[in-house]
Amino acid sequence: MALIEGMAEKDATGLAKKVFEEMKAARGWDEVPLIWRVMAKKPEYLKANWDRYKAIMMGGMLEPKVKEMIALAVSMVNRCSYCIDSHSFALRQMGMTDEELLEMVAVIDFFSGTNAFSSGLKVEFQWPQGLGPTHPGVDS
Amino acid sequence: MALIEGMAEKDATGLAKKVFEEMKAARGWDEVPLIWRVMAKKPEYLKANWDRYKAIMMGGMLEPKVKEMIALAVSMVNRCSYCIDSHSFALRQMGMTDEELLEMVAVIDFFSGTNAFSSGLKVEFQWPQGLGPTHPGVDS
Amino acid sequence: MALIEGMAEKDATGLAKKVFEEMKAARGWDEVPLIWRVMAKKPEYLKANWDRYKAIMMGGMLEPKVKEMIALAVSMVNRCSYCIDSHSFALRQMGMTDEELLEMVAVIDFFSGTNAFSSGLKVEFQWPQGLGPTHPGVDS
Amino acid sequence: MALIEGMAEKDATGLAKKVFEEMKAARGWDEVPLIWRVMAKKPEYLKANWDRYKAIMMGGMLEPKVKEMIALAVSMVNRCSYCIDSHSFALRQMGMTDEELLEMVAVIDFFSGTNAFSSGLKVEFQWPQGLGPTHPGVDS
Amino acid sequence: MALIEGMAEKDATGLAKKVFEEMKAARGWDEVPLIWRVMAKKPEYLKANWDRYKAIMMGGMLEPKVKEMIALAVSMVNRCSYCIDSHSFALRQMGMTDEELLEMVAVIDFFSGTNAFSSGLKVEFQWPQGLGPTHPGVDS
Amino acid sequence: MALIEGMAEKDATGLAKKVFEEMKAARGWDEVPLIWRVMAKKPEYLKANWDRYKAIMMGGMLEPKVKEMIALAVSMVNRCSYCIDSHSFALRQMGMTDEELLEMVAVIDFFSGTNAFSSGLKVEFQWPQGLGPTHPGVDS
Repeated sequence: MALIEGMAEKDATGLAKKVFEEMKAARGWDEVPLIWRVMAKKPEYLKANWDRYKAIMMGGMLEPKVKEMIALAVSMVNRCSYCIDSHSFALRQMGMTDEELLEMVAVIDFFSGTNAFSSGLKVEFQWPQGLGPTHPGVDS
Repeated sequence: MALIEGMAEKDATGLAKKVFEEMKAARGWDEVPLIWRVMAKKPEYLKANWDRYKAIMMGGMLEPKVKEMIALAVSMVNRCSYCIDSHSFALRQMGMTDEELLEMVAVIDFFSGTNAFSSGLKVEFQWPQGLGPTHPGVDS
Repeated sequence: MALIEGMAEKDATGLAKKVFEEMKAARGWDEVPLIWRVMAKKPEYLKANWDRYKAIMMGGMLEPKVKEMIALAVSMVNRCSYCIDSHSFALRQMGMTDEELLEMVAVIDFFSGTNAFSSGLKVEFQWPQGLGPTHPGVDS
Repeated sequence: MALIEGMAEKDATGLAKKVFEEMKAARGWDEVPLIWRVMAKKPEYLKANWDRYKAIMMGGMLEPKVKEMIALAVSMVNRCSYCIDSHSFALRQMGMTDEELLEMVAVIDFFSGTNAFSSGLKVEFQWPQGLGPTHPGVDS
Repeated sequence: MALIEGMAEKDATGLAKKVFEEMKAARGWDEVPLIWRVMAKKPEYLKANWDRYKAIMMGGMLEPKVKEMIALAVSMVNRCSYCIDSHSFALRQMGMTDEELLEMVAVIDFFSGTNAFSSGLKVEFQWPQGLGPTHPGVDS
Repeated sequence: MALIEGMAEKDATGLAKKVFEEMKAARGWDEVPLIWRVMAKKPEYLKANWDRYKAIMMGGMLEPKVKEMIALAVSMVNRCSYCIDSHSFALRQMGMTDEELLEMVAVIDFFSGTNAFSSGLKVEFQWPQGLGPTHPGVDS
């Protein structure tokens, strides 16, 4: 059970109400998800998070579905129950099938394993071809 | 410094040598990366990992670049130094620019924050619209 | 469901009973929390943990409420369900309000994000002003 | 070595320059720390993070030093090298001594241990006295 | 609730069916555990994981019970609910008692604490006696 | 670089000196490792940790080498640099070869992967044969 209850939408006033309305219009939501309604108890924090959400998730070069997959991968590695449910729901709404989801989780399985292997043995990467971590992409 | 040294390519024989050759042909590598050369000291383990790599990373529905981004996201959340270097290198080779990389890390930043928030407060997701975690994607 | 059941208080004898009594007197507890009753099945381990608890949590320079907040922050980042409940309960007993709790979680949200950002990009800190990691506090 | 270089302060223009100036004035910095200069390559992201920093870290009920300790605790549990250096530096500037720092780390040591114990054995917290996770603090 | 349902054994055909039969014979299982039945929806992934399981868990120098304890330790540190249940179940079947399990968890508690301490303070190990990370064991 | 310097052995007095001497006698060390010398700046904390070390690591049913392997597995999953070096050093001293170490890391690789898979998909374990998490081992 959550440590703090969310604010009911009907109880929102002022800044919280304004952000809720903006969110629902921008995202096409019928209801504001619980996490944002918990944040709403500190309205200036809600607003700062929503502004950050817009700056990061809306616009930019990467496709929305790719960003949502990165969000889900992060949530899976962090073992965040709410976030796994929330981002897998969003991906399902974007049309993700069981097959794609399983393929994605297989990638997470594989690299969680090699992550543990190379961190565990303290193996250090050697850049091939005289290149380093900041070399530009070859197609760019 | 690594706990176990990698096998030099010239010292590989039998199964290890066979896997190294297959890897270089399949991936277009001039050299076998260090992590695989450490695994090679247990050749049947090297082979099982390589077979799994092929089953997961080659073929399937998700684009190679998307899979590599998921691999990098996993490695960043797991704080794996070798893996961050290795997957960011692979993405640079695929043409990833600083701008895309920064956009991707911004997504990881955002959801690492909300992950901590919702896990920390033990908030539980509520599926809207009578749907649940296994509902099929709407476009599928 | 827990892998090991806790020892009922009435079943405690010898060292376990002695530690339970000391704990209840020192902390003002009516009942010994479950985690300590699980530890009690290995009584010398229970005692060593309790002695360590006293050495770390009782006395010292930091205020009890600050220590409890650090304990909760650690538990939130480690996604420890029992510990989140236990330390938030302790803080509630010390008078923590929803507002303070939310402010604290906002700090955890923010730095979980920047942690992922700087670890993910392998950014290294540069000490300003010729100082280093062991420089003494300016007011001390 | 970092995957993306920071923007030099002298190269900042427009929004990035404006945020840098605001930061230096608000925080009393001679130089903008590297992490913010990396973010500056995506200026709207820099701004959103800085606005969020202000909403979370400036003002509120918890003391700045307590917030900084929570930030350091989070960074230590997340094994974030840059962040450990950065927040311990900030605390040193606020007068933190070796003794306080060691006391704080002892708390992190203790609860990292009990976190692993109770998560590992899947022990569930039992609220005493008919209370639950949202009960208000007794002094409030 | 799981995001993807497992394949029922009776629905398995082709490669999945073949792997299920091999697993049950090799492990003496009456039923295929759920995790493998989820993997079965991507049969070549199921097979690659099973082959890897055989290469890592069957044969080799370490005793099966020791490997299972390492698996449980990893699962406890990673806070993986399914895996804690699954590996503790396997160890119970091998005869592990509450006393051994508690002793094992005490080790995990202790080193989770010292891990946080030394990572938190960025303490670096100093090899005694002129030795380094790859020096061979003294009895080998 | 460490945030706090260790106490030199020659500077130890009182309780710290007593614990150092006891440690060196009990463990056969020529020098007290750095981590304990950092703890020594808070002597009652040093003593409580050493007492706990004795209660957990000395005596009991599990073999010392098995405990050390569990300690190393925990340290690898927690990405603790000092601890990986320290416990792999201890295991090397006990005769561990590259082959055993690689076999152990392969186990960690495998289950780090399945941990991420089952946590990521929120798969729940089903106890076979009417058994549950606290059923006693079959041989006990």
